[in-house]
Parts: sequence; structure tokens; C-alpha cells
Amino acid sequence: MKSPLLIVGSLAFDDLEMPTGSFKNVVGGAATYCSLAASFYSPVRIVGVVGEDFGDATLADLRARGVDTEGVEHAKGKTFRWHGRYADDLMSRTTLDTQLNVFADFNPKIPASYKQTPFVLLGNIHPALQSAVLDQVDRPKLVAADTMNFWIHGEPAALGELLKRLDLLIINDEEARDLSGISNILRAAADIRKRGPNKLIIKRGEHGALLFDDDGVFFAPAYPLEQVLDPTGAGDSFAGGLMGSIASLGEVTPVGLRRAMLFASAMGSFCVEDIGPARLQKITRVDLAARIEAFRRMVDFGGELSLPA
Amino acid sequence: MKSPLLIVGSLAFDDLEMPTGSFKNVVGGAATYCSLAASFYSPVRIVGVVGEDFGDATLADLRARGVDTEGVEHAKGKTFRWHGRYADDLMSRTTLDTQLNVFADFNPKIPASYKQTPFVLLGNIHPALQSAVLDQVDRPKLVAADTMNFWIHGEPAALGELLKRLDLLIINDEEARDLSGISNILRAAADIRKRGPNKLIIKRGEHGALLFDDDGVFFAPAYPLEQVLDPTGAGDSFAGGLMGSIASLGEVTPVGLRRAMLFASAMGSFCVEDIGPARLQKITRVDLAARIEAFRRMVDFGGELSLPA
Repeated sequence: MKSPLLIVGSLAFDDLEMPTGSFKNVVGGAATYCSLAASFYSPVRIVGVVGEDFGDATLADLRARGVDTEGVEHAKGKTFRWHGRYADDLMSRTTLDTQLNVFADFNPKIPASYKQTPFVLLGNIHPALQSAVLDQVDRPKLVAADTMNFWIHGEPAALGELLKRLDLLIINDEEARDLSGISNILRAAADIRKRGPNKLIIKRGEHGALLFDDDGVFFAPAYPLEQVLDPTGAGDSFAGGLMGSIASLGEVTPVGLRRAMLFASAMGSFCVEDIGPARLQKITRVDLAARIEAFRRMVDFGGELSLPA
Repeated sequence: MKSPLLIVGSLAFDDLEMPTGSFKNVVGGAATYCSLAASFYSPVRIVGVVGEDFGDATLADLRARGVDTEGVEHAKGKTFRWHGRYADDLMSRTTLDTQLNVFADFNPKIPASYKQTPFVLLGNIHPALQSAVLDQVDRPKLVAADTMNFWIHGEPAALGELLKRLDLLIINDEEARDLSGISNILRAAADIRKRGPNKLIIKRGEHGALLFDDDGVFFAPAYPLEQVLDPTGAGDSFAGGLMGSIASLGEVTPVGLRRAMLFASAMGSFCVEDIGPARLQKITRVDLAARIEAFRRMVDFGGELSLPA
């Protein structure tokens, strides 16, 4: 049964210096990308904070997609702003400026109408705030979270407490190595799973993503694209697509989780095809169904696989 | 119906400077790795050249595995020798010395008993010699070849002629970019396929391999390992496993080719687990069946994948 998904995280303006040009005031933030991606699969409830400069267009667009924006706090001041420059090959990026603005005092308040949301996705914020969200909700079926090196190094104790409360951690390979102190990805995964989350997803950008759970390892490739314009938000689109498709089933099953990895990768592949969330805002369900079919073909080996006699 | 596979390529001694130590006189060469890997799936016929120092132990071991070594020429002089050093993370290597020795005058002669081999794998040698092999065999069902940057840059005309005669080219991503002059992997693949080979496999080392054919793109992951000791020969083991498993079917089918990608990746994953071909020489069919089952689980999404309503 289709269930709602609670997403907590940043809403932002990004100034992007890309090889293809400069783009200012691009709507961004983890919660934005996560909810856009998840909204194709399930109803979404979003918690975040925006400043007086955010306007209502983005939130109205999200509402039109079935995203409940009651949990978006409107604070005095300016919205969180990130300014970054990407390398020519888009494989790395440099932060030129970060203005936390209203995000500096963000303290997520979960509306009463959100408290019984069965699926929860905690975007990358201070791990103590991620834990504070969990204090405010009634025993979800699945709690997933993202984090980053800044918290891994700066707030190890708070992050350690959070990890014990997670069902699923979604990070990239560099973060997995930093968190575990282990460079081998299999051993890093085993170490991290012992710290709390039974399920772990390690993202490898254009090289796909690995799921580690009690069923072993599952691999979801990234979709090869003729042109990548902007990787911003791809990881969040992946996480949103993943959790949205799990919420659409209403329960967590091994095969559902594996398929969710492919639905997630499909959302990540759309995200990078235009600047900011522009492509995600434009795609239709027909586009998405076609991309999912392309994914199926890319990994379909006919089900059977056994050593020839 | 299980069919034989003809493999043409180098037999060598490698001196390997690894982070774990120095290893001298390790038996190597593309034909060695390819035939070892292929021998788990189909009968193999090998063509290459060795010097007086090669001894018979390696060839006797290959024969015990169903590899016909009639095509191995015994020449006066020393066997081809490569001396290389790997970086600490095993991600790159430097050639310290190459002694072509008897390989310098290698001119593959296909024994009469090999001429009607339906599947042919041309290891990385001068493209004119690869073409000369094809002049000596009767219309195989599938001809596959490897090449390298040295020939891409040094012998573009001969390589261009060879490409027109191939059904399948197996190269890595750097070679695909060099050959096409295109950095995007999808567009590079389309360009290369226009030059001859209807099927193209682009290997990405630990990030898996992509198959491009008339059915689109298929992705085979690499198997994540707790410890990698030596990447030498992994690409050749992949190619041997691929062609051996196709030969075991006796014909080329779309689903057979996709499964062959996974069988191939399984052989590559064994190869890197020990120095030189040691691990490939030790594994049993039980080991291989278990690894193949682990691969199946790693990519099994239950077959169905469609956008939730």
C-alpha cells in the first residue's frame, strides 16, 4: 500500500560555475532534490527552512506533485546559499562560498500531521538534528539518512548515536572510507553495518551504487549518458527515488529494495542531464517509465545463471 | 552444443613488483590467462610462441584442462618477458622493462586441425598479425579481439582493417577514448561500432564492464573483493571467460552474451585474488559455481521492473 515519505533537509539557492557557464540562484538543497525525485513514486512530506527570498513558486510546484509543504518553515532572513565551481570533467567541485543564513538556526519541527509517517529520509544535516527528528516521529518502518565528511570528522559522537537509530545509511565511497577508516569497500561496509544501520548503500557516482544487507551485496549501475551537464543533487535524487519507491510498496522487502536501487539510479540519471533540478522538473511519467525500461534492459540477464556443464 | 575456442596471443614470463613483494618468473601472457579462464567453459586451442626457457609444466597443466597446445611454437631463444611495477593502490602500473625475445618474430601459424574453430579470440598482438590469423581460419561464428594504445596510435591503418573483420572488440575505457577520440563512453562506443565490430565491450576494471550491441547496453559489475593482490591478467581472464562461455553454447544469442559478461567478470574476479595466474590455476568448478551464484545474487532484481502505479 502506497505510504507517505518524510524528508528532512536543506532548501537552498545554488550559484553554479559549470564548464558550460555560470548559473545563479538555482533552486537547490537536499530536500528539494529528494522530494522532487520521490514524488514520482509516493506522497512526500517535507521539513526544512527557507528565507524571505525563497518565494512560493518552488513550493507550489512541489505541492502540485503531491509534496506536503506544511513542514517548511518560513524564517526571517535569507535562504541557505551555496556557491561552487565544477572541474571541466565534472568529477570534482570546489566550494567558493557557503552562506548558511536561516539554515544556521534550523531546528526541524515535525508537524503533528507528519508524526506517523512510516518512511523517513534524513538529508545531510547535523547528526544531532537528524536524531532530534527521530525523537518527534512514531516508530517508522524504515529510517534512512545521508551524512557527509564534515560530520564524520567534526561530530563523531553525535553521528555514532544517530547510526544506532538508522535502518539504512546512504553515503558515497569516500565517506564510507572516512567513516570506517578502511579503504577496502567490502570491509568498510561490514564495519559501518556493525555501528547500527542494517542496510548500507555506498554510491560511486557514474560507477553506480552498492547495497549491503543481510542478503549480501546488490549492484545498481549508473545509466551511461551522452551528456552530463550538472551532477548537483544527483545523490539526493538517488536517495529520494530510492525511498519514494520503497514507500510506494508500503513495506521493505528484499526484492523491493533491489528494485528501489534501480528506480533510484534512474532518478540520479535524470538529475544530471540539466542544470540544477530543471530536468527533474520537466520529466513526465512516460519519460520515467522509458528510462526504467532502459535500466531493466541494461541489467537483464534472463534471471538464470549457472555454470555450463 | 559445446564448441572449441581458438585463442591467439602471448605466453610470457612476468617479473612483478607488487606492494606485497617482488615476484620473478611468473608465468603470464594474454594467451595463458585467456586459455586458463576459457578452459572452465569450453575446449580451447591455443596459438603462441615460447622460448627454450619455458619448460613444459605450464603447457602440460593447460593440456590437463582441455587446452590443445599443438599451436604453441617452440622457438630458439628466450620467452617474452615483461617487468612491471604496480602502484600501492594497484590502480596503475609502470613498465620497467620489456624483452620481446622470441615474440619479436611471432607469426601465428594456425595448425590444420584448428582451421575450423567456430569461436576465435585474438589477444593483443600487432593488428596485421591478428588479421593474418583470420586469413587462415574458415569463417568462424564469432571473432573477438583485444588491442592496446600502442597499436591504436602506432598502427591505425592495420587496426582499421582488422576492425572491419571483427564481430566483437574487447577494450578498456581509456583505449575506447583513444581509438574514437571521444571522451563520452556512449558516443565513443557508437563511433567504434561504426568502424566494424557490431559488438563492443568496454572494460572499466573494478567498475565493471559494458556491452554495446544491437540490443542496447548491458552492464556487468566487477565482484567486490576483500583483497586484491595482482590485477595482471584480469582483462585477459575476463575475455577468456567471456569467449569460453559463449563457445560452450555453440552459438551467439543475446541472452547468452549477457550471461557471458557475468561469467567473464567472475573469471576476472578470481584472477586478481593471487599473484599471476595462481588463483585461476587453483580454483575448482565448485569454487566457480559459488562465485557465479554470488554474481547472480549481486545483479538479481527479480526480472520485473516497472514504474509503480
